[in-house]
Amino acid sequence: MIIVMKKNCTRDHVENIIQLLKEYGLGANLSTGSQTTIIGVLGDKTKLSDANLELMDGVEKCVPIMHSYKLASRDMVPEGRTVRVGNVTFGAKKVVMIAGPCAVENQEQILKAAEGVKAVGAALLRGGAYKPRTSPYSFQGTEEEGLKMLRRAGDETGLPVVSEVTDHEQLAFAEQYCDMFQIGARNMQNFRLLREVGRTGVPVLLKRGIASTVEEWLDAAEYIMSEGNCGVVLCERGIRTFETATRNTLDVSAVPVVRERSSLPIIVDPSHAAGKAAYVEPLALAGVAAGADGLIVEVHPNPKQALSDAAQQLTVDAYASLFHKAAEVARAVGREI
Amino acid sequence: MIIVMKKNCTRDHVENIIQLLKEYGLGANLSTGSQTTIIGVLGDKTKLSDANLELMDGVEKCVPIMHSYKLASRDMVPEGRTVRVGNVTFGAKKVVMIAGPCAVENQEQILKAAEGVKAVGAALLRGGAYKPRTSPYSFQGTEEEGLKMLRRAGDETGLPVVSEVTDHEQLAFAEQYCDMFQIGARNMQNFRLLREVGRTGVPVLLKRGIASTVEEWLDAAEYIMSEGNCGVVLCERGIRTFETATRNTLDVSAVPVVRERSSLPIIVDPSHAAGKAAYVEPLALAGVAAGADGLIVEVHPNPKQALSDAAQQLTVDAYASLFHKAAEVARAVGREI
Amino acid sequence: MIIVMKKNCTRDHVENIIQLLKEYGLGANLSTGSQTTIIGVLGDKTKLSDANLELMDGVEKCVPIMHSYKLASRDMVPEGRTVRVGNVTFGAKKVVMIAGPCAVENQEQILKAAEGVKAVGAALLRGGAYKPRTSPYSFQGTEEEGLKMLRRAGDETGLPVVSEVTDHEQLAFAEQYCDMFQIGARNMQNFRLLREVGRTGVPVLLKRGIASTVEEWLDAAEYIMSEGNCGVVLCERGIRTFETATRNTLDVSAVPVVRERSSLPIIVDPSHAAGKAAYVEPLALAGVAAGADGLIVEVHPNPKQALSDAAQQLTVDAYASLFHKAAEVARAVGREI
Amino acid sequence: MIIVMKKNCTRDHVENIIQLLKEYGLGANLSTGSQTTIIGVLGDKTKLSDANLELMDGVEKCVPIMHSYKLASRDMVPEGRTVRVGNVTFGAKKVVMIAGPCAVENQEQILKAAEGVKAVGAALLRGGAYKPRTSPYSFQGTEEEGLKMLRRAGDETGLPVVSEVTDHEQLAFAEQYCDMFQIGARNMQNFRLLREVGRTGVPVLLKRGIASTVEEWLDAAEYIMSEGNCGVVLCERGIRTFETATRNTLDVSAVPVVRERSSLPIIVDPSHAAGKAAYVEPLALAGVAAGADGLIVEVHPNPKQALSDAAQQLTVDAYASLFHKAAEVARAVGREI
Repeated sequence: MIIVMKKNCTRDHVENIIQLLKEYGLGANLSTGSQTTIIGVLGDKTKLSDANLELMDGVEKCVPIMHSYKLASRDMVPEGRTVRVGNVTFGAKKVVMIAGPCAVENQEQILKAAEGVKAVGAALLRGGAYKPRTSPYSFQGTEEEGLKMLRRAGDETGLPVVSEVTDHEQLAFAEQYCDMFQIGARNMQNFRLLREVGRTGVPVLLKRGIASTVEEWLDAAEYIMSEGNCGVVLCERGIRTFETATRNTLDVSAVPVVRERSSLPIIVDPSHAAGKAAYVEPLALAGVAAGADGLIVEVHPNPKQALSDAAQQLTVDAYASLFHKAAEVARAVGREI
Repeated sequence: MIIVMKKNCTRDHVENIIQLLKEYGLGANLSTGSQTTIIGVLGDKTKLSDANLELMDGVEKCVPIMHSYKLASRDMVPEGRTVRVGNVTFGAKKVVMIAGPCAVENQEQILKAAEGVKAVGAALLRGGAYKPRTSPYSFQGTEEEGLKMLRRAGDETGLPVVSEVTDHEQLAFAEQYCDMFQIGARNMQNFRLLREVGRTGVPVLLKRGIASTVEEWLDAAEYIMSEGNCGVVLCERGIRTFETATRNTLDVSAVPVVRERSSLPIIVDPSHAAGKAAYVEPLALAGVAAGADGLIVEVHPNPKQALSDAAQQLTVDAYASLFHKAAEVARAVGREI
Repeated sequence: MIIVMKKNCTRDHVENIIQLLKEYGLGANLSTGSQTTIIGVLGDKTKLSDANLELMDGVEKCVPIMHSYKLASRDMVPEGRTVRVGNVTFGAKKVVMIAGPCAVENQEQILKAAEGVKAVGAALLRGGAYKPRTSPYSFQGTEEEGLKMLRRAGDETGLPVVSEVTDHEQLAFAEQYCDMFQIGARNMQNFRLLREVGRTGVPVLLKRGIASTVEEWLDAAEYIMSEGNCGVVLCERGIRTFETATRNTLDVSAVPVVRERSSLPIIVDPSHAAGKAAYVEPLALAGVAAGADGLIVEVHPNPKQALSDAAQQLTVDAYASLFHKAAEVARAVGREI
Repeated sequence: MIIVMKKNCTRDHVENIIQLLKEYGLGANLSTGSQTTIIGVLGDKTKLSDANLELMDGVEKCVPIMHSYKLASRDMVPEGRTVRVGNVTFGAKKVVMIAGPCAVENQEQILKAAEGVKAVGAALLRGGAYKPRTSPYSFQGTEEEGLKMLRRAGDETGLPVVSEVTDHEQLAFAEQYCDMFQIGARNMQNFRLLREVGRTGVPVLLKRGIASTVEEWLDAAEYIMSEGNCGVVLCERGIRTFETATRNTLDVSAVPVVRERSSLPIIVDPSHAAGKAAYVEPLALAGVAAGADGLIVEVHPNPKQALSDAAQQLTVDAYASLFHKAAEVARAVGREI
């Protein structure tokens, strides 16, 4: 933490701050320039969270230098973490391909989807049972029955399954049916939910909030990890910007940024970023080229009849095309699928 | 709903869509222009949520014409709704002044804050007990004890109290202590929580999500109202933009936009928008001038010792200055405080 | 400037930087914390623009501490600058009311507009002659003839006139007809144009770029001022965000932020921010309440026949209503109109 | 164009609009639904730019259906346009590799850069001579001398050269030295400059404005094309969002969006998007994977001594690594370099 003093600060102002830091067991390094005075705080800055230095007389601003997350940081595990879900490993050489419909609608639909994506080569099956929807009048998901149907589809095809949880009360039930929990973008800062999935041993796919910085996202991962669950996989799924040509703007730069700052695997969701089937493939390939550890793609046996997000779901054939090109791109960047 | 056809669409494409609409009990109005064909959908479009017209062959795009919210819309109550909390009414001539600390820290602090803002003239007391914090290592609130302390401070000063709830499990307890629930920006799309507060009879202060459009915000209000609780007051508290000079960007335009589209009262939170005490007063005055039905301002008996959001909390003296100027501005626009 | 070193930086890395700073005639202040090392740069940092410290081995990042603008800064003229245009002063107690049509269309229209806004009480007349339009197929302005018509309307009503210049070649001509030049949002970083208006003695109304930070805006003002023209008035006119309910999002916080950082007067343009006549009045009042030194409002004698921006132009009657309420709000905050 | 009427509009309101459309030689298609009335406008909507339908009584809003650009649209040349610069073709199978320093600093530097990137395999040389800089106190470019040095470096290495023009007065001179003009992000809506480069026969690299939508970008291209110059290559270089981990946010989705809407080639600039050398390679690969027709990358013989944008320029060695990986990715998506 750097404390920048006002131009007209007095010697007393500076002394008071140094005194305060001392009370917190921290040291101070004074840097008196021609135009301004700067105080470097020495020691563990977490002690300072309640000190409110910005309000001290003579202070212009405080500039944080360190991250607030620790377990999620790259420093902690410089070689990178891996996360295992069934027989699948995130963060290894293989790019993990997750696919399935937006929502589990009925047993036949999810089974057909599972068989379709399995035949193409997907490694995990996705399907939403608890659906957070913007309007209360939209289809709200098949909930517990949906999870059971998803599990059956996973079992029949030998695919581990991932599904979104939106409330900690669902965890005890969902744990019996899911190999991986997804935390959706809207719940990225639902801290109670984060803590509770942190108390399960179930790996977590943590989507980035629509308006969250990478730093806030890593802080959210830290909530899960600080409860003892380090099986967190990050998922970039597009952020909200002024551009309306796509549903969201895929922030593909998040892949190298996360790689630099965090040890956690990161995958890309081109479907929610695009919001339109025609753009899903190019965004998926961009994600792999940028170094993503996996892709989560919405695939529906018959998108025209989908109960939600119809416009962005691929047919199994379109997914097969994406899959084979993604495999080529993966090879081009030294990975495989 | 308007369906815009592709330039090269065939007669069959158009026929298929008209046929599909028929199956949903809807009519179609064909508009064949020199450059494109447009189909207007006649009837209740909510039947269409599962029809996925965008994927039909020949379709360029669908343009929604109507809102998805009903109870929250202006049409429903053209003269505007009022919401009563204790002896206070939101949406009437009086601009409702809510004030208090970011967090309830201890009995003495909240009582001092309550006495301070009461003496100035505030109508409601605020104070956070359940604190959602970006980092798991920050102060997390005094929780149940905090609510009790808040209640006591409210009772001693005769002020109704409002406090944030972050989880539906808190409601049964919180209901005994709060006159109004606050749903914070991060939980604006925590749909389970919205539904559950909708099932209580407690008035709700619904903050706008940091990256939520006005439409999504009104959809969130609709979640609460569709459960039978129409006591919703909206609160603009700044949105996330590229500008970093302020913590968020106060979208003061939201006041007239909401006024036009919705019957619900809307207030302004200048403290979270500004993130800096020096900007709170001008933003508060701007909110009142734009027609806000109230202001919620963070006031702390000693901001330098605050456990959270220290930089944006006002002293009681600074609040008194804001209050008196706000009263002048309210009069200037035909309101009072 | 603060240089934050990497955790694993060596003593040699630090020495190399101190050596480099020395070569630039700068001092270094070393702050070795438990977790990181920080180097404070002492002396005039402008010498460093070509030093590229971020690329030195061992450097994590550089954190700028000082602004790059000087003449535009508050420090330079702590009491604030005033800018005089004809008999009007920006930055004094009086809130300056500028009004007129988006575009000068013909002599009758601009004269009628001038008479209308003059009767209401406006102090300056606006009217665009050179119109920057998004599409090449839209109406492009009346150009030189427009300026002459504007001048005549100003002369007949006794109002000084302000009009946008979009190219430095227009200046010699425009200078004969305008009392104040406007630089539009799209040209805020047209540095050649900024320099050239800086070389005239004509006061400048500098609109904020649609995606420009306050810092970049003040840097743009500095371009004008560094050529000797300190008659710069800033104009907040809305920024681009994700919200589409308004044409742009009025960043009313920019008023107190600019007030704190800069000595230049700042006015508000509610018309371009709103993009819709119904929202112009509340945004105008918000601007005055927040402390703006003026308002520039689009007023057309017959908006339905306007050749551009029809939706956001007010009738003279609507302007009269806005004007009188703005006068009340001005009084409420210790100003007048 | 679709006109959506207010719920409470009268029959007269509708009649008036139909009458007005008739006066403009346009037809109307009436669609009277259960909840609202919609009028489809039949005929050439460009006639309507001055009609201001939104202000007619009873009108809720107007929804545009067609683009305002024509020459830039995909419809015009469905198979896509190609743009030839020297012996290089944009929009063909080959991904065009442009490289060179941010700024031409001196003859030795630009020649060394040219030789370096030529040896790696680049097809075009870039180098800025007229530099638009945020602060007036930053290095402003070598201007005319710079262009001559760039030309010499291009001639000695056999590489065509591209350089930014910031003012139409530079064109006559620059035309003698450049094979392609670049219009920078800040000038994307400098309409005079667009028109003037449109009147030259020189191919244009048109960067996207930092806050411009794809639609506005294509409108800007239309300005150039409407003057007779169809040699426009679009360049995505990152947009401004709330995320600060990168200088800008690369909107890689713009590649498929432009491909769908426009016939113009599109390339990607990973350097300005990233703002940091370490992120340039992954973003470059993402661009190629998404289908970009080229890459423009900043390469400096010695980035540590660069006079501008030092942090984002690659060494020749780092560029060689990027180049070879990009070639692999290009092959993976059916292209070559």
